[in-house]
Amino acid sequence: MSFSPLIRQLIDALRILPGVGQKTAQRMALQLLERDRSGGLRLAQALTRAMEGVGYCRQCRTLSEDELCLQCSDPRRDDSLLCVVEGPLDVFAIEQTGYRGRYFVLKGHLSPLDGLGPEAIGIPELEARIGQGRFSEVILATNPTVEGEATAHYIAQLLAPRGLRLSRIAHGVPLGGELELVDGGTLAHAMAGRRQFEL
Amino acid sequence: MSFSPLIRQLIDALRILPGVGQKTAQRMALQLLERDRSGGLRLAQALTRAMEGVGYCRQCRTLSEDELCLQCSDPRRDDSLLCVVEGPLDVFAIEQTGYRGRYFVLKGHLSPLDGLGPEAIGIPELEARIGQGRFSEVILATNPTVEGEATAHYIAQLLAPRGLRLSRIAHGVPLGGELELVDGGTLAHAMAGRRQFEL
Repeated sequence: MSFSPLIRQLIDALRILPGVGQKTAQRMALQLLERDRSGGLRLAQALTRAMEGVGYCRQCRTLSEDELCLQCSDPRRDDSLLCVVEGPLDVFAIEQTGYRGRYFVLKGHLSPLDGLGPEAIGIPELEARIGQGRFSEVILATNPTVEGEATAHYIAQLLAPRGLRLSRIAHGVPLGGELELVDGGTLAHAMAGRRQFEL
Repeated sequence: MSFSPLIRQLIDALRILPGVGQKTAQRMALQLLERDRSGGLRLAQALTRAMEGVGYCRQCRTLSEDELCLQCSDPRRDDSLLCVVEGPLDVFAIEQTGYRGRYFVLKGHLSPLDGLGPEAIGIPELEARIGQGRFSEVILATNPTVEGEATAHYIAQLLAPRGLRLSRIAHGVPLGGELELVDGGTLAHAMAGRRQFEL
């Protein structure tokens, strides 16, 4: 109990950040107080504005303060591609690959044990979105986890009758790693998915 | 550029926190937006209040929103002990050892190369504080670094004529470690500072 109340409240509040425990929160609070008060105030302002101003894109459901997000409102994007992801951070990750089609953001993945069925993660909205668009391919980019695979499988079965091209992002060995450190499941996928060597 | 402006500003603002890079800031921003907006607003409020309300204790110079900090204003503490530390986080660390005397917080350590002499780190204020009090012992608890040692040495020389008991926190092997992993300098201190085994 050796910090004054305002500092203690700041330390407690910082602990809601992911990966921040008591020690880190103390270091953050004191660093801001001793070195960068104007930065601390800017952070407070940015937090308030974002928490109050950011909603969800009407079309793809990613986080956005406008009714249509940057990706949905851009007229130069490819309207024939739809990439289905589990969350807004995935949109950012896929953007960095150079993909320039459209997105649909689920609310996580199917998880029957947690009571998360197709309605909870937004499958009806996905069907509606596909009904409105003129997509030729739907890329299922859910996470390579058991739940993500099951979700991709469920969506693929649901969309099969529509005659769209359905694809799943490739599984294999990540670049820059060492083969002996890759787990067996991944390596099995990499072997099964091998391609003709291009000379 | 796939986050909307408010989210991008929040991510940039979070990066002023120590140890938070681009990826961590993204994760923090999206986690707050998706899971805990009220927590984010509480954090903004705690930041504003602390940045605007916290100053320094008039007596020991630790961070405090009151003119006298919790340690200085507590009448039950031992007025004969003064512990000199480099920063407010050290006050918190020493508090946890059960120490219940008074404190004096320097602004870091002597560092002539960075232009930090005795005035810059508050040595005159330390002398004034010792002049006001009735201390019988001054514990030099600067960091066990080259600069911290030099600072402790400087203060000890300066205070020597006052006839106070001057002490330095012990150097030795930390608890729970393995001897073979302890560096040579520490081990040499631990050997030189050995004590009679108490049965």
